[in-house]
Amino acid sequence: MEPADARRLRADRARQVADVLRCQILRGAFATGVLPREDRLVAEFGSTRNAVRDALDLLRGEGLIERLPGVGTVVTTTKYPHGLQRLLGLGETLHEHGEVENELRASGTITPPVAITSRLGLPADSPVVYLERLRRLNGVPLSLDQTYLEPGLGAALLEQDLVHEDVFVLIERLRGPLGAADLTVEAVNADPHSAAVLAAPRGAALLMVERLTHLADGRPVDLEFIRFRGDRLTMRGTLHRSL
Amino acid sequence: MEPADARRLRADRARQVADVLRCQILRGAFATGVLPREDRLVAEFGSTRNAVRDALDLLRGEGLIERLPGVGTVVTTTKYPHGLQRLLGLGETLHEHGEVENELRASGTITPPVAITSRLGLPADSPVVYLERLRRLNGVPLSLDQTYLEPGLGAALLEQDLVHEDVFVLIERLRGPLGAADLTVEAVNADPHSAAVLAAPRGAALLMVERLTHLADGRPVDLEFIRFRGDRLTMRGTLHRSL
Repeated sequence: MEPADARRLRADRARQVADVLRCQILRGAFATGVLPREDRLVAEFGSTRNAVRDALDLLRGEGLIERLPGVGTVVTTTKYPHGLQRLLGLGETLHEHGEVENELRASGTITPPVAITSRLGLPADSPVVYLERLRRLNGVPLSLDQTYLEPGLGAALLEQDLVHEDVFVLIERLRGPLGAADLTVEAVNADPHSAAVLAAPRGAALLMVERLTHLADGRPVDLEFIRFRGDRLTMRGTLHRSL
Repeated sequence: MEPADARRLRADRARQVADVLRCQILRGAFATGVLPREDRLVAEFGSTRNAVRDALDLLRGEGLIERLPGVGTVVTTTKYPHGLQRLLGLGETLHEHGEVENELRASGTITPPVAITSRLGLPADSPVVYLERLRRLNGVPLSLDQTYLEPGLGAALLEQDLVHEDVFVLIERLRGPLGAADLTVEAVNADPHSAAVLAAPRGAALLMVERLTHLADGRPVDLEFIRFRGDRLTMRGTLHRSL
């Protein structure tokens, strides 16, 4: 790539190279798990050696790659895609990639603040069932989920196998089909405690999802606050220009 | 809230309180911009004073709130919602919130790596038009966008008002309706240079979007890598259980 502007900085070029490489890594372009050698990348990107080195440093900083003496630069992480096309639980969306297991960190009936009961369409003083789950794929921590459930449904869920099954699957077994969910996606830095639970570095970027799920008849039943490790999960979907 | 498990830690309760407050802040629940006093929050959450204080610390750490002597705890940020329902440009999706202005940091024709030309359905050695824009809403930096355009379209776009108009709007004016876009959403920590450009703290959590947009006839024309400041933007949408 040629600088299109004299003010373009080396850091800008490094970011450009890093983004293309990140995108290739996520798409599995390096089948052997080893990136091309530095001089190949310099030629491929028509970039300077410094920009390529800086780009590799950026990706190393994100935990995507590592330099192994005698081997080269290797891909060290897998980012799993969580579909944005359809409402799916984590176990459902990742079933091709392995087994999701949930560590139940807390569960029980609580009296939540009105901000929770009102979202669930419950009276202000209604109890709800609260679950806190650390979710792992093939033993690797992916997300920390806080779940508030309509009390009748929640009580029934507490009798189920919450360790091995998605809440969505269990709800449908007990109450019939789910309808739609409203969700908000944010990026936040992990607070020290969340980072420790997720075995992530302090301050690590997390994908934070707040999601209110309804039964097919429109009743809200399940409000979740989910922290996904940003280095382990992406959300992927298609948007259309016309509705 | 009552501890549902003896192993529940003060940090877990703080996270729980923080998430509910964050959600209330994002939904504009505190119309005056001032949060309830600490003792009100303790009562409302049925929580301990320590957990409430820790929760406020977490939100302060995210830059959402600040304590002002004599006033109380005030909301210090606005997070703007970017719709996940329909393919929209930033100016379009935020038009109710103000004026988006784009600083063109770089623009011109480049020969990109094959990872770019192949996504755009171009021959390996095809040039493309590259744009780098810092996008501000009402003067506040929201995102840093790197855009690769099909060369004919890109050359025509360079003649347009890229400072005040969304690329999507300009493409439709020149080429007719857009169709769909494939997108990937990640959370990444800002590298030092991106953080500086976005006037964000080093390591700040960014929402990183990679998006390939097609014309209505299916031809890919616009590949973008977008870094949104995590503290300024959320993505919001609805997912359906059945397709």
